[in-house]
Amino acid sequence: MDASIGDFSSPGRLAAPGEGIGLDELALAARNHGLPLEALRYDLTPDGLHYLLIHYDIPAASADEWELTVGGRVRTPLTLDMRRLRSLAAVTQRVTMECAGNGRARLEPRPVSQPWLVEAVGTAEWTGVPLRTVLAEAEPDTDAVEAVFTGADHGVERGVEQDYRRSLPLPLATGDDPEVLLAYAMNGRPLPPQHGHPLRLIVPGWYGMAHVKWLRDITLTDTPYTGFQQATAYRYRQSADDPGEPVTKIAPRALMVPPGFPDFMSRNRVVRPGEVRLEGRAWSGRAPVARVEVSTDGGGSWSEAGLSPEDGHRWAWRRWQTSWAATPGSHVLAVRATDADGHTQPLTQPWNRGGFANNLVQRVRVLCLEDG
Amino acid sequence: MDASIGDFSSPGRLAAPGEGIGLDELALAARNHGLPLEALRYDLTPDGLHYLLIHYDIPAASADEWELTVGGRVRTPLTLDMRRLRSLAAVTQRVTMECAGNGRARLEPRPVSQPWLVEAVGTAEWTGVPLRTVLAEAEPDTDAVEAVFTGADHGVERGVEQDYRRSLPLPLATGDDPEVLLAYAMNGRPLPPQHGHPLRLIVPGWYGMAHVKWLRDITLTDTPYTGFQQATAYRYRQSADDPGEPVTKIAPRALMVPPGFPDFMSRNRVVRPGEVRLEGRAWSGRAPVARVEVSTDGGGSWSEAGLSPEDGHRWAWRRWQTSWAATPGSHVLAVRATDADGHTQPLTQPWNRGGFANNLVQRVRVLCLEDG
Repeated sequence: MDASIGDFSSPGRLAAPGEGIGLDELALAARNHGLPLEALRYDLTPDGLHYLLIHYDIPAASADEWELTVGGRVRTPLTLDMRRLRSLAAVTQRVTMECAGNGRARLEPRPVSQPWLVEAVGTAEWTGVPLRTVLAEAEPDTDAVEAVFTGADHGVERGVEQDYRRSLPLPLATGDDPEVLLAYAMNGRPLPPQHGHPLRLIVPGWYGMAHVKWLRDITLTDTPYTGFQQATAYRYRQSADDPGEPVTKIAPRALMVPPGFPDFMSRNRVVRPGEVRLEGRAWSGRAPVARVEVSTDGGGSWSEAGLSPEDGHRWAWRRWQTSWAATPGSHVLAVRATDADGHTQPLTQPWNRGGFANNLVQRVRVLCLEDG
Repeated sequence: MDASIGDFSSPGRLAAPGEGIGLDELALAARNHGLPLEALRYDLTPDGLHYLLIHYDIPAASADEWELTVGGRVRTPLTLDMRRLRSLAAVTQRVTMECAGNGRARLEPRPVSQPWLVEAVGTAEWTGVPLRTVLAEAEPDTDAVEAVFTGADHGVERGVEQDYRRSLPLPLATGDDPEVLLAYAMNGRPLPPQHGHPLRLIVPGWYGMAHVKWLRDITLTDTPYTGFQQATAYRYRQSADDPGEPVTKIAPRALMVPPGFPDFMSRNRVVRPGEVRLEGRAWSGRAPVARVEVSTDGGGSWSEAGLSPEDGHRWAWRRWQTSWAATPGSHVLAVRATDADGHTQPLTQPWNRGGFANNLVQRVRVLCLEDG
């Protein structure tokens, strides 16, 4: 029987007008879950509720046998086991991470891939060794321009067999703002299998695709990396032949804890008349969050919400809150964030072919019932 | 503006022929994740990978303030805080739990609800107080026939506002085979919010709907409970007006760790020629697993797989394994379990209107590439 990878692994495509979510998209959604929005109530996302996006399989990895190699354009190639990495001075950072594809499922036409609605986010405290510590020990050559990170997850994507692999510019990899981490702990415990056990990259402020999980190799190169996840995927393109710009830092977004209680199937919300507290989180990897505005009339008018004080966690979301005098009837609530560089969330959806960095304002349908 | 719950909360329905998964079904899939199938490799499902099905919102619950009330047809009504419950003799049980709706998304016509493919399962060690210990202390009246369990999650479902609530027959609630638990720990740690923190019911061998989370009240009744989750949902019906039989114990099922590596989008698998180990798990709540068979020709022929020895964990899955001499080409693997009562998995899909207890054999598409 003849068969080739091409029969098994299709090119990227856009859904046809009116085409429902397919079973392939659904299989990804069943594996890679989002944050239940009521969990925005927690400063730190409880274990198991942080969003997940795993391209291939979760590798069967053992911390006892794990080795990180560092090579390429360096004077001193390294092989580091977990004991060695844990012996180096550690840093803990609170980081909000978001999938670059968040919001993709609402695009028209819809790029066929992991079909996120709005929930691909989470915040955790990551502990590990600053990447610059390890790179300094390896002594980069003067002609090195990028660091290429290879994970142990292996698969096929649009016909290309690959290990998951991404690069960062060397100035970012060796800098301290943000402090890029080789992280081995999440919320004070060893990384769980699905978050990269035993070692992953954390790149504060960047979308999730940069935070390579199950990290096994770092190679410094004297030319920019052009592999699949850098040059084919994760670019802002308007058409298939547009080379596009790379996806990097997280665009501003605010999300709301949906008020009241839900309908099981529609997830629409029900409240009673009177004062309703509205709260949620806001973040941006591009500049600190400067303002959060809430609309209780579907985006017709906006008023500023209160922001929790700056707490030194630059790379984590901030809490916002306001209150709403709910009256009987049907309402659409909305929330939008603006960052210190003036980036704000759009009211109509921009579009790109990969479905990246969508930060359309969230809208929440609420029914306020009559009392009694 | 007029609006009613009926505008927000629709009756149950079946999808039209060819109707893709809707955004409402997708929103449930993004919240309520399944077990990534490669995680079948673990005896105990790692934290965060156990399947989740939450009807309404995860409540904001505090263990310090939690109280369980026990009342109704009892001589001694009780109010128990978590300190009191933790002071009683505890039991730990390893239990495989599966959602009653597992497999629903492949039914034709498809019941529109949480759209599981095959992955709504997980195994954990649950620690808590035997339910019979607490009921003995409450002293059931002689006319009590059922125990009704109320969770703190509140919502609307098909127009009915409700707390999540289910009942068990009193002989099961006061019996010790299975040992029904009031569980406060999962895998040795306090229940996480999404698994019922701080207290939930565990009913070994039953589908997930029976294991009421965020348990706050037990009421003994002298008549069978006829609330929504008992008499409307979770029944085997062929039509909307069929009263149906209740959904109770888990039907036998085996699942396979998909071999080789995946294509990102289709989740089809790729292997190289030669010996490929096939392994997975099998379980049944109806009788112990007696046999697992594997087919490497799409169900044309079957051979028996090896089952791991009985290990005393009656209510947990058992590991199975076999090997396959893969040859270049396209293959369909399949696996099926049979339990000691002779229940076996069907090769064609039976159907019921709620999409419950589907245990159609799993089929895994594998491409074996030529060497080199």
